[in-house]
Amino acid sequence: MTKTADTDHKIHNTLATRWSPYLFAETPVDVNDLQALFEAARWAPSSYNEQPWRFIVGVAGQGDDHQRILDCLAEPNRVWAGRAPVLVLGVVVDQFVPSGTPNKAAEHDLGLAVGNLLVEATVRGLSVHQMIGVDADAAKTEFGVPDSAHVLTAMAIGHADKSGAGEAKYAERDNTTRTRKPLPEFVFGTRFGTSARF
Amino acid sequence: MTKTADTDHKIHNTLATRWSPYLFAETPVDVNDLQALFEAARWAPSSYNEQPWRFIVGVAGQGDDHQRILDCLAEPNRVWAGRAPVLVLGVVVDQFVPSGTPNKAAEHDLGLAVGNLLVEATVRGLSVHQMIGVDADAAKTEFGVPDSAHVLTAMAIGHADKSGAGEAKYAERDNTTRTRKPLPEFVFGTRFGTSARF
Repeated sequence: MTKTADTDHKIHNTLATRWSPYLFAETPVDVNDLQALFEAARWAPSSYNEQPWRFIVGVAGQGDDHQRILDCLAEPNRVWAGRAPVLVLGVVVDQFVPSGTPNKAAEHDLGLAVGNLLVEATVRGLSVHQMIGVDADAAKTEFGVPDSAHVLTAMAIGHADKSGAGEAKYAERDNTTRTRKPLPEFVFGTRFGTSARF
Repeated sequence: MTKTADTDHKIHNTLATRWSPYLFAETPVDVNDLQALFEAARWAPSSYNEQPWRFIVGVAGQGDDHQRILDCLAEPNRVWAGRAPVLVLGVVVDQFVPSGTPNKAAEHDLGLAVGNLLVEATVRGLSVHQMIGVDADAAKTEFGVPDSAHVLTAMAIGHADKSGAGEAKYAERDNTTRTRKPLPEFVFGTRFGTSARF
């Protein structure tokens, strides 16, 4: 299955074809692919090159980290995310190290790192579904995240299940057309809310 | 000039070659390229598909928006960023529309959208330098950003100046090798701070 974006302007195919499935196959993620995903994240830009992103990774069948991450997800996510062979917590370090000055770009920069990871995943035929529905306090305690950092997101990573065999509710979501606001609603000039004229 | 990342694992060339120059050529950005950059941003994923990102764009030579954005930058950025033909403010809507519920993924999701924009820019031979050094309050007033949103970042967009003619301080920065933390310092398993074993 592909869900290529219906773009108004031509963009790179990797960006146009990425989407976030609910139904994952149980096929494991190759270790070289997994390393490449985080290597891609590594080379994202960040404010003062602080690289405030941290990831906690659980691979199904390797110890209990996968289950421990799954247990930290909000209940609606737990239902479908457990099938993905890799689960990840996205953690943000809130201050510059070692100065302790607050890093107001930290959450934004986790997004930049994950943006890179998504591109690498798409190129390698992998899919990622991000979640904000995480019990951040539970995850912090469970994985010993220090007070200078916080858990913000989770990700399910694997191969999209194209068999059509999954639960109907999620199969239906996965077959829904991707939609976005048109450019004039979020690209402004002169004043917030006034569409750019280029 | 290229500054290809010295990666430990092979990643997609577009991600490996992206970098943030200080020295921009005055060559304008083609309007089709500019549209494609924001189209790429448009198709990023976001929490509940809220798309909380907004952009205010100033193009040099088209009205005074470019100058008005430049005036909102922190003074150290104003020195070099003015040469870039396109300046952008990155704005985040803090609540879900219309419910008003806080969107805790909003800043992160601006990062995801900009991550897409960076890929499209790199593919098209354009460069982007992001800044957190923005007078957010001044920008909010100047561009009429509502209280439900805040200005977080700025971006300079254009062609990297490869002539070697720029100010020595910035030419030196642009020639510096890109560095990052190794994977074991930010990819964990079992516990925060314990390197993943894959």
